[in-house]
Amino acid sequence: VKKTLTVAIAGLGTVGSGVIKILESKMESIERKTNTRLVITAVSARDKTRKRSVDLSSFKWVDDAETLAADPAINVIVELIGGADGAALRLCENALKNGKHVVTANKALIAKHGVYLSQLAEENNVTLAFEAAVAGGAPVIKMLREGLSANNFARIYGIMNGTCNYILTTMQATGRDFKDVLDEAQKLGYAEADPSFDIDGIDTAHKLAILASLAYGCPVNMDALFIEGITRITTTDIHYAAELGFKIKLLGICEMTANGLLQRVHPCMIPVTNAIACVDGVYNAVVLEGDSVGRLMLEGRGAGESPTASAVVADLIDIACNRFTYPFSVPANALQPAKNASIDSHNGAYYIRLTVIDRPGVLSDITQALSTEHISVESFLQKGAKSDGNVQIIITTHDTSEKSMSTAVKQINSFPWAVEPATLIRIFK
Amino acid sequence: VKKTLTVAIAGLGTVGSGVIKILESKMESIERKTNTRLVITAVSARDKTRKRSVDLSSFKWVDDAETLAADPAINVIVELIGGADGAALRLCENALKNGKHVVTANKALIAKHGVYLSQLAEENNVTLAFEAAVAGGAPVIKMLREGLSANNFARIYGIMNGTCNYILTTMQATGRDFKDVLDEAQKLGYAEADPSFDIDGIDTAHKLAILASLAYGCPVNMDALFIEGITRITTTDIHYAAELGFKIKLLGICEMTANGLLQRVHPCMIPVTNAIACVDGVYNAVVLEGDSVGRLMLEGRGAGESPTASAVVADLIDIACNRFTYPFSVPANALQPAKNASIDSHNGAYYIRLTVIDRPGVLSDITQALSTEHISVESFLQKGAKSDGNVQIIITTHDTSEKSMSTAVKQINSFPWAVEPATLIRIFK
Repeated sequence: VKKTLTVAIAGLGTVGSGVIKILESKMESIERKTNTRLVITAVSARDKTRKRSVDLSSFKWVDDAETLAADPAINVIVELIGGADGAALRLCENALKNGKHVVTANKALIAKHGVYLSQLAEENNVTLAFEAAVAGGAPVIKMLREGLSANNFARIYGIMNGTCNYILTTMQATGRDFKDVLDEAQKLGYAEADPSFDIDGIDTAHKLAILASLAYGCPVNMDALFIEGITRITTTDIHYAAELGFKIKLLGICEMTANGLLQRVHPCMIPVTNAIACVDGVYNAVVLEGDSVGRLMLEGRGAGESPTASAVVADLIDIACNRFTYPFSVPANALQPAKNASIDSHNGAYYIRLTVIDRPGVLSDITQALSTEHISVESFLQKGAKSDGNVQIIITTHDTSEKSMSTAVKQINSFPWAVEPATLIRIFK
Repeated sequence: VKKTLTVAIAGLGTVGSGVIKILESKMESIERKTNTRLVITAVSARDKTRKRSVDLSSFKWVDDAETLAADPAINVIVELIGGADGAALRLCENALKNGKHVVTANKALIAKHGVYLSQLAEENNVTLAFEAAVAGGAPVIKMLREGLSANNFARIYGIMNGTCNYILTTMQATGRDFKDVLDEAQKLGYAEADPSFDIDGIDTAHKLAILASLAYGCPVNMDALFIEGITRITTTDIHYAAELGFKIKLLGICEMTANGLLQRVHPCMIPVTNAIACVDGVYNAVVLEGDSVGRLMLEGRGAGESPTASAVVADLIDIACNRFTYPFSVPANALQPAKNASIDSHNGAYYIRLTVIDRPGVLSDITQALSTEHISVESFLQKGAKSDGNVQIIITTHDTSEKSMSTAVKQINSFPWAVEPATLIRIFK
């Protein structure tokens, strides 16, 4: 006798429609794998009249998604409403309390309330699943939680925001500037009307914080993250990056350092010989450095209707098969706050670009400022005077501390020959 | 109250030692994830006196591994004996029949008897797990079976043999010839004393056949595979490949074609712009082209003590958590033989290298032979006469059928000016 698992979908944007399409078109194959029939019983969204790519007529329509949490006919809630609080939170909270499984693609919600929701899920003996929250269709959460469960991680890093990667890739390929490419991305639907969440690095930070929690057994802690977006990246820097053998990417990086767990999101200069430098366009990639497995890279489409829906349906199939994991690898109350390292303690190499007035003594001022902080120069490039009489100086350094570097840069910016504040980009190795 | 899962390890080579090390050093973290204590109760290997990197004194030693199958104190057998038949098969068979879970890294065994063993596991309500059989520590089987369970696959391909990839990468990097690099690989322990299993493509074929079964719901069928190894790859071809923008890699490829399921293992010319062309040395990579998820690539170390042990222990953790999947995604008796396509029906582009006597009429003979088979030339390169008076002609073609190509090559080889049989390498796109 086949079991039935009843599913309600709250939120019918592209992902919600994608989930409906997969469940309908692959019903048979899913039944063979799970011995279970997945039945969509109810759907909910803000606007019933909106034109959608799927036929909703056979599903019960609910105006207020939150009421789904109390419907005894529903086994699983798929939450695709979005937002870290409000209706999404209340729906998930009440659904779990009422013994329903919850599948969500909502990284903001999981980053902010994931540990609390995980506790609720564990208390009520149901599943909280969020594979779709990180890296779209690439099952990095399952990999971290199950496939690589025998590993401790020295470092995990990745390109986790398709919008930023599309913008940086296009700037590199076309030489067009940030604003111009962002405008186009918005027209193409690759960037939101309000793009700040993506381009300021917040979305990447949510995803990184979730991965860090899974990898290091600590509660998600957004306050511990250093976050810097891509809005100040110029075509000039992209150009010099190429000249120096680098590509600029927005990375989320968490690593266990001598000073504690360092979580950071910022643009990086990545050597073109590093595989992740070749991950372009809307692709995402996550590299996991495990003590047993070594370096592992997973690359795939980070967003979009069907990749994200692929992850949501995989979570539903896991639930149908009763495949259980603690949402954060270990019981929520066994998560232990990490000792967090601040970005000041970061040690690494830097790219510095200066725009200076072309006059004697500048080089000596710069080298003096660097050497006072014991910063050793790796390469030095001076580009001839422009029509405005200014010159560009591009420096890459050997490893040094973030603290020394910011002190030196403050000093450099204060010189009267400095035309504008120095551009500083961390080099990733 | 914590549960206990008792484990016996049969075979104590590098992987077996690696498993013991992980289970001992990560006992606590595994307990947090599984609420279970994994206890090694017995070990077995051919030679008790052999020096090993782990202390075996606390485990029960068993001379005849096969007796482990009947020991009521054991819950899980880790089979690391190797070989498609013999002791490995009998141990797994009897262990499953006696209601024990089996974890194995043995691709030859799974390729030959996996479906039968899967049936036994299902009948006895236990797990048969073989994550370590494909791509070492990279959890490609879990990905295919669970993380991407909502996908149909147009194509799956990969570099799945570290020995071959090491040899080809080293030939490319150093210009040294096949025999020379193979000798060195044997000295370094990257290749077996009898390397034929690896270099003839059999090992890749085993892994590919397992992935094809998982992806297409058909029984593993080694007879359906076309297999060609790397023994005929020369530095000359690697050199011309680079000149044409290709790298030569041994790929395993399965794809659903208009003529049925085509499974093939052979050296490929891969455009250097393709991410998999950059997977070098002992790394493995598998690309999965799913209808929902799009193109997904997983890259990691394909062999070695700790990557393989990482996969074995992940399987043990899945068992401890009661995470169940059908070994081949669907019940063994629901697997349906695929309609298999033969290599003759393959359609693609080709690289041809000819060594010919430098005399008039040769080019016209070649172009005639190709055009009779409606093969269209994409690039043509003639290298000036060597001291022996012979010239090299390198041709790449547009897409054509394997059948047309072999007919044309047979014709070309029969001309009196042909110094040696043509070298033919398929171009991968």
